[in-house]
Amino acid sequence: MFEAAARARLDPAHYRYFSGGAGEEVTLRANETAFQRICLLPRVLRGTGKLQTDVTLFGNRAAMPVLVAPTAFHRLAHPEGERATARAAASAETIMIVSMAATVAVGDIAAAAPGARLWFQLYVQPDLDFTRTVIRRAEAAGCTVLVVTVDSPARGRREHDHGFHDLPDGMYCENLRDGDRVRPIAMMPELTWEHLAVLRRLTDLPIVVKGVLRPDDARLALDHGADGIVVSNHGGRQIDTVPATIDVLPEIAAAVAGAVPVLLDGGVRRGTDVLKALALGADAVAVGRPVLWGLAADGERGVDSVLRTFREEVEHALTMCGCASLRDLGPGLVRR
Amino acid sequence: MFEAAARARLDPAHYRYFSGGAGEEVTLRANETAFQRICLLPRVLRGTGKLQTDVTLFGNRAAMPVLVAPTAFHRLAHPEGERATARAAASAETIMIVSMAATVAVGDIAAAAPGARLWFQLYVQPDLDFTRTVIRRAEAAGCTVLVVTVDSPARGRREHDHGFHDLPDGMYCENLRDGDRVRPIAMMPELTWEHLAVLRRLTDLPIVVKGVLRPDDARLALDHGADGIVVSNHGGRQIDTVPATIDVLPEIAAAVAGAVPVLLDGGVRRGTDVLKALALGADAVAVGRPVLWGLAADGERGVDSVLRTFREEVEHALTMCGCASLRDLGPGLVRR
Amino acid sequence: MFEAAARARLDPAHYRYFSGGAGEEVTLRANETAFQRICLLPRVLRGTGKLQTDVTLFGNRAAMPVLVAPTAFHRLAHPEGERATARAAASAETIMIVSMAATVAVGDIAAAAPGARLWFQLYVQPDLDFTRTVIRRAEAAGCTVLVVTVDSPARGRREHDHGFHDLPDGMYCENLRDGDRVRPIAMMPELTWEHLAVLRRLTDLPIVVKGVLRPDDARLALDHGADGIVVSNHGGRQIDTVPATIDVLPEIAAAVAGAVPVLLDGGVRRGTDVLKALALGADAVAVGRPVLWGLAADGERGVDSVLRTFREEVEHALTMCGCASLRDLGPGLVRR
Amino acid sequence: MFEAAARARLDPAHYRYFSGGAGEEVTLRANETAFQRICLLPRVLRGTGKLQTDVTLFGNRAAMPVLVAPTAFHRLAHPEGERATARAAASAETIMIVSMAATVAVGDIAAAAPGARLWFQLYVQPDLDFTRTVIRRAEAAGCTVLVVTVDSPARGRREHDHGFHDLPDGMYCENLRDGDRVRPIAMMPELTWEHLAVLRRLTDLPIVVKGVLRPDDARLALDHGADGIVVSNHGGRQIDTVPATIDVLPEIAAAVAGAVPVLLDGGVRRGTDVLKALALGADAVAVGRPVLWGLAADGERGVDSVLRTFREEVEHALTMCGCASLRDLGPGLVRR
Repeated sequence: MFEAAARARLDPAHYRYFSGGAGEEVTLRANETAFQRICLLPRVLRGTGKLQTDVTLFGNRAAMPVLVAPTAFHRLAHPEGERATARAAASAETIMIVSMAATVAVGDIAAAAPGARLWFQLYVQPDLDFTRTVIRRAEAAGCTVLVVTVDSPARGRREHDHGFHDLPDGMYCENLRDGDRVRPIAMMPELTWEHLAVLRRLTDLPIVVKGVLRPDDARLALDHGADGIVVSNHGGRQIDTVPATIDVLPEIAAAVAGAVPVLLDGGVRRGTDVLKALALGADAVAVGRPVLWGLAADGERGVDSVLRTFREEVEHALTMCGCASLRDLGPGLVRR
Repeated sequence: MFEAAARARLDPAHYRYFSGGAGEEVTLRANETAFQRICLLPRVLRGTGKLQTDVTLFGNRAAMPVLVAPTAFHRLAHPEGERATARAAASAETIMIVSMAATVAVGDIAAAAPGARLWFQLYVQPDLDFTRTVIRRAEAAGCTVLVVTVDSPARGRREHDHGFHDLPDGMYCENLRDGDRVRPIAMMPELTWEHLAVLRRLTDLPIVVKGVLRPDDARLALDHGADGIVVSNHGGRQIDTVPATIDVLPEIAAAVAGAVPVLLDGGVRRGTDVLKALALGADAVAVGRPVLWGLAADGERGVDSVLRTFREEVEHALTMCGCASLRDLGPGLVRR
Repeated sequence: MFEAAARARLDPAHYRYFSGGAGEEVTLRANETAFQRICLLPRVLRGTGKLQTDVTLFGNRAAMPVLVAPTAFHRLAHPEGERATARAAASAETIMIVSMAATVAVGDIAAAAPGARLWFQLYVQPDLDFTRTVIRRAEAAGCTVLVVTVDSPARGRREHDHGFHDLPDGMYCENLRDGDRVRPIAMMPELTWEHLAVLRRLTDLPIVVKGVLRPDDARLALDHGADGIVVSNHGGRQIDTVPATIDVLPEIAAAVAGAVPVLLDGGVRRGTDVLKALALGADAVAVGRPVLWGLAADGERGVDSVLRTFREEVEHALTMCGCASLRDLGPGLVRR
Repeated sequence: MFEAAARARLDPAHYRYFSGGAGEEVTLRANETAFQRICLLPRVLRGTGKLQTDVTLFGNRAAMPVLVAPTAFHRLAHPEGERATARAAASAETIMIVSMAATVAVGDIAAAAPGARLWFQLYVQPDLDFTRTVIRRAEAAGCTVLVVTVDSPARGRREHDHGFHDLPDGMYCENLRDGDRVRPIAMMPELTWEHLAVLRRLTDLPIVVKGVLRPDDARLALDHGADGIVVSNHGGRQIDTVPATIDVLPEIAAAVAGAVPVLLDGGVRRGTDVLKALALGADAVAVGRPVLWGLAADGERGVDSVLRTFREEVEHALTMCGCASLRDLGPGLVRR
């Protein structure tokens, strides 16, 4: 709803960076259109009154099953950057997954948004000591879950990004500060499932694996002790022509079979999308670009508005579908 | 056929109110395109002479299986409002389902259109006494069937409606008059199947449940004593990405198995659409927006023209398909 | 190939009359796009040398399996009208099916085009004596096959025709002359399969039934003694949303099982289309609008060019598919 | 990536010649869109480090499984013509299949590009002695494989070519020199599978059959001693509405069952396309138009850039899919 306003306000190169995807952007578009091709089958006269929309994940309650996905560089969108996003997430009583590539340090984000429920997204770095340092910062800031991105053994090739290479002066990936300098984020093609055990030794936080698109990988995640899974194609930004996340969700949810929470991001733009994802097996979803558009358009208020709209739309869709609770959502409510 | 003329005459906000749907209007479009994807398979050399196109529903004969669907606020379209619509329906010898949100009282509609066959559409109101009052007015006006809308536990979220909030001065939902005031129409999320029994105690009229999209709900309707069913998604106005009505009709008709009449609305724009719906199990269809466009374009004459065109097109399609009677329409005449 | 030139030359109302279809023109478009969705699977290294492209139907040899379909009012397209079309068909050594609604009498067409192979298309008229008179004229002109249109129990409702109602002064359906006057062509909804027996008593010509879209009707045609079948939806002009002819051809060909010749018209625009139709069971195809565009663009020479292009394309496609003969075309050559 | 630049630089008739396809260009488009409809299913956390991207075909090692397809008339694109293309192929350490219709003689190409790995594409000519002469030239130039085009028993009918008929003055198909003159290239509809045995007597080079679209033809190729197969529809230039090559690859690969190498061309534009083709059974792919666009845009440097981009994209896609080696590519990596 805020994309046009965001586009008008953003530096065009930054807009393209936020909005773009890999290759011909087949997956970027598919993430959204796949939701539109799934039908909801509302039930009538079910007498929904007060709705139950909250979800508890790893002991963290969110007032709705819509989390803030980790996205980079919020200060490109608004001077308050991740501070504003976190305050809006706190107001909405939902969880914000802070990006390792945040332009505000995770501790400063936490300080700016009392009551925020923060998780932390991590790219494992070749220097494990430094990786531990970053995790410690997240822990110290009160982050309660570690979300490890596994779909990025290399950077995405995003041709639409041309024109955006470096953060503006004075803007840094603050979570990667190392004394006087800020380390660049490294992508690690050599990362394997065994690194989950390494991470387990570095932190007691639940470890959620983000970027799974195959049921066999979901089973491997369980085998290697992952505490949760995010079905994600990185918003269509890493490699093109991978499936829309909602299209692979059912088989991944079947493989996980309730053993750990399953989240999904990618193309969630409407309350009806949220219901479809939950009906098809997700415990919650995360939204990235919509939050960025709200932030760029109007800072904290914009994000407030985006999250409030999601909340209202989820409640509206539940009511319309005759579901009093998220627990009423199941495969019988949708048709693919 | 009158949409362009209607658009030219209507206040843009009112045009958007009539034409728009929920969300991205996926369902609004699907209602129409689903009909286009169904093929008719005409039979040749069947010697159709005089055609049988009339249908009798709950003892009411209509000269064609095309009814006027309940739509709100006809006086937005034309000063004569529902009076004009009813007169045209009477001329066409078909049934008009008067909307509870009519801008002319149902009694005045009946008085203005002698010979009209009127049914009455109801949103059950929290105040059951007042609900009874409204039903009594419909009964007093000669309405012979009560059509209870069940797909609206809340208002639709129609973003295209912005600009239209209130009826103009002097225009009211006349059926909701309560002494000096006009009550607002309440949507009741707490409505359940048990309310059908409550309604049954309030009236002896046949009760038709409008807004069913699932075969299990159709069976529940039968179990709870409904006298008929309207397969409807409220013209795509309540919640987006629900199926096109014609796409769910066959399984609902199979579930009902002839126990009660099954009607359909949503996307019916052509005589061929009417034949397809009947071939797939409907007893009749109802048309909403086409009537509004006729009304806005040319008042009673416009609606006359719309209904006459439907009649001619139904007759033409029957002839072309080698069907002398609506009874010849069956699943063998279509391919999905 | 000539449509743009034809459009530029024709009275817009006449262009719309020739080009248009019924309703939203779903079938009109489908006739063409259905061919594009069927793949050819060429065989390589088959050593096709001299090609066999001729076909013999009811004792009439055509140099290619592409006939001129019956279309009305050629003098709207060119002053020479059907005379020019027939001369071009004669040059191409193919069969022209003269329309009952020709603007040149069938006898004059025959006289103008020595060597032409003419068939005659008939709408059975309520006055059987007059029907016999018309058939006699066709027989006297040397027509060797009677093609009876059965898909037109009524006129098509073609909204795009508005503006064209009557033939210009001095132009008439010459085959319907009855003394001083020209009778209008009547459509007969009361026509039944039994009328084939009536026709059989009126003529010794082979009787081909044109306008079949269902395998059960094809079987009825055989049962009632039809000598051939044309799978046709009247170029999408009679009733919209009936199937593309190529899509129903295989099941009709299977029903006929070689008992009589099966022809197809509708959407044939390319040599590859011709091969697909023959591979899927047609003995030959007929082309309507392409001939009209050639006629409108450049008279006899235009039709010459259209037919020559079809011939060249058929030969090219056969060569490319490794087929030396039309007999090599079978279902293994296509994929739907 | 260079098509726009190439279009800007090329004579429009030459651009159309290079870019165009047969008929309505259904196949031309399908070649590309078919790749987009196939999903990649990346595996995560597989620890790919150093990648293996080289492939050895008939003893020739290529650093990547992307060859330069044979395309005609490179001097239309750039004065250096095939010399520039060959130098870029040599730099990229990949194989160039020299077109028989090259505008530089194969010997001169080889001389201009030391280290180039050249194969030679042949249209068998009616004069077998002259055919042998042409093959000898290719052998003398160091070509190590003979690629025999079998999909061209006649020239394609490419309507978009109008305006291009003859090579400019001073430009010739140098491989067809015969004393003072240059012979025209003849297409041979009479070519059969038996000609493979004839060719076998003319050369000891491996013989690869280019232009197979059916599994039965692939089996015939094996039966007749072909050493390899190129699944190709000639870039959509010969006959329209044949299938996209990637769509028929799996059944052809199954028919070949590893007996000989299977290559594919047609629509390969991205590293992800390369992975899909290999996952579905190809040993390597060849790219035509992208090379021409690079050549037209910037000569050798343009082709360098195109081939380098393919190399980078293949490596990127392998990394993203968790595949350390081309050998890890299999049907489990894709979904159609």
